[in-house]
Formats: sequence, structure tokens, C-alpha cells
Amino acid sequence: MRKLNVLVAQYPNQDAVFRIVPARVEAAIARAPASLPPLEFSWCATDDPAFGERATAADAMIGFRFPTDQIKRPGSALRLIQVAAAGIEHLLPLDWLPRSVALATASGVHAPKIREWAAMVLLMLHSRMPHFVTAQRAHQWSKAYSSHIAGRSALIVGTGGIGGSIAAAAHGLGIRTTGVRRNIRPTRHFDAVIGLQDLNDAVASADFVVLAMPLTPTTRHIVNADLFGRMKPEAGFANFGRGGLVDQEALRAALVAGTLGGAIIDVTDPEPLPPDSPLWDAPRLIITPHLSCDDPESYVPRTLDLFLDNIRRRVEGRPIRNRVVRSRAY
Amino acid sequence: MRKLNVLVAQYPNQDAVFRIVPARVEAAIARAPASLPPLEFSWCATDDPAFGERATAADAMIGFRFPTDQIKRPGSALRLIQVAAAGIEHLLPLDWLPRSVALATASGVHAPKIREWAAMVLLMLHSRMPHFVTAQRAHQWSKAYSSHIAGRSALIVGTGGIGGSIAAAAHGLGIRTTGVRRNIRPTRHFDAVIGLQDLNDAVASADFVVLAMPLTPTTRHIVNADLFGRMKPEAGFANFGRGGLVDQEALRAALVAGTLGGAIIDVTDPEPLPPDSPLWDAPRLIITPHLSCDDPESYVPRTLDLFLDNIRRRVEGRPIRNRVVRSRAY
Repeated sequence: MRKLNVLVAQYPNQDAVFRIVPARVEAAIARAPASLPPLEFSWCATDDPAFGERATAADAMIGFRFPTDQIKRPGSALRLIQVAAAGIEHLLPLDWLPRSVALATASGVHAPKIREWAAMVLLMLHSRMPHFVTAQRAHQWSKAYSSHIAGRSALIVGTGGIGGSIAAAAHGLGIRTTGVRRNIRPTRHFDAVIGLQDLNDAVASADFVVLAMPLTPTTRHIVNADLFGRMKPEAGFANFGRGGLVDQEALRAALVAGTLGGAIIDVTDPEPLPPDSPLWDAPRLIITPHLSCDDPESYVPRTLDLFLDNIRRRVEGRPIRNRVVRSRAY
Repeated sequence: MRKLNVLVAQYPNQDAVFRIVPARVEAAIARAPASLPPLEFSWCATDDPAFGERATAADAMIGFRFPTDQIKRPGSALRLIQVAAAGIEHLLPLDWLPRSVALATASGVHAPKIREWAAMVLLMLHSRMPHFVTAQRAHQWSKAYSSHIAGRSALIVGTGGIGGSIAAAAHGLGIRTTGVRRNIRPTRHFDAVIGLQDLNDAVASADFVVLAMPLTPTTRHIVNADLFGRMKPEAGFANFGRGGLVDQEALRAALVAGTLGGAIIDVTDPEPLPPDSPLWDAPRLIITPHLSCDDPESYVPRTLDLFLDNIRRRVEGRPIRNRVVRSRAY
């Protein structure tokens, strides 16, 4: 059996935590089932002039950011691209993607970490931590009481890998969960599931509104001044998805006006948030630098396990996991 | 059977959340077992000139802050004082306390709320939230990764009602717990229990050091520059006890020097923390205004349930709950 060629696409300035280094690849191969076909791994920087040639000569590729215009070539061997992230909005539109190539996300890889982070964020919103942090900046000893979190309600927009983990965390705290998803169907960890068309009504009764959906042309600024205006005045808002889902000026205005209880966001638009952005100083807002899902110990190993499983599935002609559906763009 | 006289000592400017109002007393009596003796409740402000006379004419009293010099009178009927707080450091020394009066704290009343708050604080310390909040003030997008919290270790100084709830929260997150207590014995929710004399050695290996002990002349500034110097450089520190347990200047110095990972404190010395205190701006420090234990819905009801139970115990000659031991001062 010939060895399959696997390329690791390395983009410049990547955080060391996310680097797919030989030792991690070897460890993942050692963990994989014996039915894994023989693989030959190689590495190429995405700004290497030979990148396109290397990528299309490989059978499978793993990476995050890469020059998509170099992927389509006659006679390309490439059949699988594994993206090492839950979101692929930076690769849209998908007009560069050959029909012969399956594109897969790393959805689900973040589950264990996101569950802990989500429990923390829900408890922080409930306990008025955004208020206390803002009061501290002003040297103010300002009490704001909270009772038990159990019995509160969370509206979670997006029911995929990350949304499901947030719902699991909410359930663990006794919070009632409503999920918003494209295709309405019973979903694990959600007490109720509604469609996107019912979002406007549903936000009015939620104690917590949490974003965990992909950024696509349809979902851009889905949370805007109108939606903030429909939320409870004491509601807590969190964004685990992408910064572009939110009209940030509307978020800031709702916080300044006091019509929103508090917010904790892990994503901004753009990233990094520029030093002169007024968002840094918005009251009752806590910003973390896009790492709520990232476990430095497990992220790369879990992504590699998924990638190797998808290589096997591709070779055996079975459906791959987390395959991006072109028409919905995630 | 004669009705027992019960006095509610009201001190000025008390937060409405903690006011013991007639409706809450009636509800507590309705919840109490039928064996509760008949009670006649009355109310008196602690700055009323008649306070001492009223207090010593009553059989039992509940309050928080009151003029202790008016409690000792010949012919006093008073047999029980229920303090509506876990700590009585504001009533020390106890030289004003007649032998005939049992003094009880509200230890344990806070358990359900503190468990939620403690889970939040442990997750925040683990997830580097004090770092992110400080970076946000400086408009800095500054990544700092964290893996799972499970398997980390917490040293909890104090194993009473609050310390036990913190340990339960830590166990729920998969954290190993070591308790520091006066009398070493197996204690629920603690994987290990050590004596105060071993505190210096134990802090060196703890990921989280959490204070939940009473403030007494012995424990004042028990956490000082020397102890901070023994902690891991990335350790997280939390104080759920009293501000006076910590040398605040040493805390600030450790944070400024970067020898302590981060801190979240719910108590300061004095309280409220004055606006000009340099502590407000210490890096990687989050301050909340002494309410981690306070559930506005359950606090007064649970304290009243305890008080009524203690009245019954006193009448029946049984030991009362949470009785303060004069020699240990808590």
C-alpha cells in the first residue's frame, strides 16, 4: 500500500500552542487504530513559493490560514483539507474549493475546555462580575447582590459543538436552556429548540443570551441595536462565536445606556481589538482575547485525532466528520 | 407557657437585603416545628437610648452590630444572642459577654451561595481572568492559555461552613483539596487536612490558596510577604474570610512584582475600601465588595431558621448550634 502524503500547512507567527510539530503527529499516529493507512507527513510554510505545488501534490492537508487561490490545480491529488479551527469564515467564499476536496472543521475538539469556560462565564454574568470590575476601575465599593443561578434561563444561539458544550455547562448549573438552530429538532442538553426566525421573541425572556454560531454572510451583525433593545435590562450577554456576529457599536451603546446588565466577549471585530477601540472601556464589559475554547494541552492532539480519523474515512469511502456544506458555508 | 421575648437589634444603614422584617419572622415561625415555644418579637435600633434595657429584658436577641457594653446588667433575662454573620471579629474581645449568654454565629447559612461563588472564583483564577481584566484596562489583547482545571490543587485555610462549601465546589471541578484547621481530623470534601503549623510548607505546592478562616488576634495578617513569597509564581489567591487576615500591602507588592499569578478578594481592610487605596489598581487583582456569601433570597430566612432552632435548643437545655467558644474567639 502506498504511503499517503500529508502536508502540514504552517502559517507565519502561529502561536506555539497550536503548532503541529512532528512529536505531536507521532503521538497521534501511535494512538490511532491499526487500520490507519501508512502516512508520510511533511511541512510547508503557507508563504513558501512552493506552497501550492506542495499542497496539491499531497493527498491530505491540515492547516488554518492558507492561500486558497493555490489549491485549485489540474491533476491535484488533494482530497481532504482539515481546518484546525471550528470556524472557517476566513476561508469564505468557498469558490476556491474543488469538488474533489472535502473540507472539514475541527468542531467538537474544543468541547471539554469550552464547558469549563462557559460555566465560568455564566456564573460571572449571574454574579455581576462585569459590574464589579467596572466599579473597581472607578475605585467604587458598589454592592450588587445575586441569588442562586439555578432556575435562570439561557438562550444559546448555535447548537453545534461549542453551543452544545455551553448548554451542558448551563445544565450542570441548573439553568434552563433554549437553543437556536437552523433545523429544529430535539438536541442534547437543550430543553427547547427554536428556529432563527423566533430569535427576536426569545431574547425577551432570557437571563443569558449566548452566541455560539458560525459567521456567514447571513449571520453578520445578527445581534444589533434592535436585538439588544429586546433583551431584559438585567440580561447577561456572551459571545463565544465570532466578533462579526455582533454590531459592536450597538453593544457598547446598550452597555453605556444601561439597558444591558453586562457582557463577556471572547471575540471581537477585528482581532486583535485595536488599542484605540472604545470597546476596551465600555462599562460592564469583560473582553478576553479569543481563547475560551483553546486548551494548550489537548487542542492539537484532539485535532490530529480527528484529522487521522478523517483520512481513514476518506480512504475507506465513508463520510468524513465535520464536513463543510458548501451551501450553508459552515 | 409564657411567651419568650425576642429582640431584633437593628443597626443604622443596614442593607435592606439583610433586614429582619416582621414578614420574614412570621414566615420563619410558620416553617418551624410545632415544638417551638411561643415567641413575642419586638424590634429596637442599636442607637436607641433604651437599647441596653430592651436587650437585657429579652430572652433572646438577634443582630449583627450592637453596643456590647450595654449587654452586661444585673438581673438580665438574656440567654442567647444570635449573630447574623459567620464572623464575630467585630465583637472581639468577648469580655463583655456574660457567662449566662450563649453567643452563636450564622456559620453554614451561606453554604449554597458560597459554593457557586467559589466555583466561579476558582475557574476565574485558573482561566487567568485577573490577567485579562488588567490587560483590558491597558487596552491590551494579551493571550494567556489554561488547560483543564481538573487535577489542580487547592489549599483551603479554614474548614468551617464557608471553607467546606469552597472545598465542595473545588471537588465538583475535580480539584484536589487540602484543608488547614486547628484540630486535624478527616473532614468532608477535603482530601487531606493539615494543621496551621504546616501552612508554610503547604502553600508551596498549591495552585490555589483560599482563605476562609475567622479573624482573631492569632490569625491577623496570617498571609503576609513571607507566605506570598512561598507560593508558586503562577498561584491564584482568593480571600473569602476577612480583610484583616491579609497584609494588603504585601498582596499588592506580590502582584506588582509578578510573583503571584492573580488574586480575587471579596474582603478588604477596612471596608468599604477607601477610594484612594492603591489596592484598587493593583495588577491582576479583582475586588468584590464583601457579598460572595450573600444570597438576598435565602440569607435572612436561613439565619432565622437557625435562630429559632437555637431558641428551642436553649429552652430544652440542649447544646445550641454554632456556639462561639470564648477561648478560641470564634
